[in-house]
Amino acid sequence: MNLKQMAGIEAAKYVEDGMIVGLGTGSTAKFMVDEVGRRIKEEGLSITGVTTSKETERQAQSLGIPLKSIDDVPYVDLTIDGADEISADFQGTKGGGAALLFEKIVATYSKKCIWIVDESKMVEKLGKFPLPVEVVPYGSQQLLHLFEKKGYSPVLRTAADDSTVITDGGHYIIDLHLQKIEDPIALGTYLDQLVGVVEHGLFLDVVTTVIVGGENGPKTIEVSR
Amino acid sequence: MNLKQMAGIEAAKYVEDGMIVGLGTGSTAKFMVDEVGRRIKEEGLSITGVTTSKETERQAQSLGIPLKSIDDVPYVDLTIDGADEISADFQGTKGGGAALLFEKIVATYSKKCIWIVDESKMVEKLGKFPLPVEVVPYGSQQLLHLFEKKGYSPVLRTAADDSTVITDGGHYIIDLHLQKIEDPIALGTYLDQLVGVVEHGLFLDVVTTVIVGGENGPKTIEVSR
Repeated sequence: MNLKQMAGIEAAKYVEDGMIVGLGTGSTAKFMVDEVGRRIKEEGLSITGVTTSKETERQAQSLGIPLKSIDDVPYVDLTIDGADEISADFQGTKGGGAALLFEKIVATYSKKCIWIVDESKMVEKLGKFPLPVEVVPYGSQQLLHLFEKKGYSPVLRTAADDSTVITDGGHYIIDLHLQKIEDPIALGTYLDQLVGVVEHGLFLDVVTTVIVGGENGPKTIEVSR
Repeated sequence: MNLKQMAGIEAAKYVEDGMIVGLGTGSTAKFMVDEVGRRIKEEGLSITGVTTSKETERQAQSLGIPLKSIDDVPYVDLTIDGADEISADFQGTKGGGAALLFEKIVATYSKKCIWIVDESKMVEKLGKFPLPVEVVPYGSQQLLHLFEKKGYSPVLRTAADDSTVITDGGHYIIDLHLQKIEDPIALGTYLDQLVGVVEHGLFLDVVTTVIVGGENGPKTIEVSR
């Protein structure tokens, strides 16, 4: 079993009957959604899913997972999602799959958040993985200039056919190649107040449990804050 | 001449040959755009306009004003726009016309900003006029609940036919009926960091000149910060 699948299947064990479950996006989350689908079909598990992307919505529908919008539930009991990097103090970056905005919206209204990763994602400090910033298309070139001046090595994300990637929310993604983020909270606050920035991939003080797929099986870390 | 028209025509005098000019949106800005169009036609004025909405884009095109996107100019020399309220210390709220996001993007890259208003918009403290917050549709009901709990008396903006207003950026508007904003900077910072909030109508430390249409003619106030 690959490490992502291991973490995904382990996380799906946390899903209980009657829960409202945030379903993350990406290659690791996909295994978790498959496993939740299997439990519904084979074990008669009954849950309501809240998706974080059109991609996961399609997958969940194909598996027969009942879905609601984040606006049609009072809250989310548990969200299970991947992460691009998790630091030693359990801050994270997300958005490699361009779903950061909806992922963060669902996480915001979730009582608990489990992140599932393979061990390569566990780092001392964030920043090797490019940090995605979701921006309004109008003014995005100006933001690129600004980030360039700040030394953030920004790159407007494009698809394989060179077209600009458009998120589910209708925005662009600028990836910041920072190498090392010394102060994630300060950077997040700075990005939050920039005009034209819709959201950024720093997920701070969000995760409550981390499940890491490794050679010796899944390792579960409860995060206390 | 009505007071809005008076302020609009006065402001258009600040436009000089060769300038890149941000063209605001709304009933007062409309008079300014008309006057800029007249000066181009009758006086041979040569400028490049940068619009803040589809509405102003249409108006400017019909007047033969050459236009560029904010992403195709290095900066904006001067933006002229309306405001919903201007406080005694020259902070403002905008967005009654739902164009706040693009207005703020253009203002951000402008060397100077003139706000044109009739005298009814000059207030001691901001807040009587509802404060618009532009939000991502996904999660907007959750934000309404949050604002309700905070005592902000939020209302999702709808059109005459009861459909939800969709901004040029593809977002919703939630109007906060605050009555009085004691600390605009603290409120702006709070709103900036909320997940799902794209932008808000507080324009802080932005305006450099205010032109007020009044019974005794236009009054021009230079703002020093």
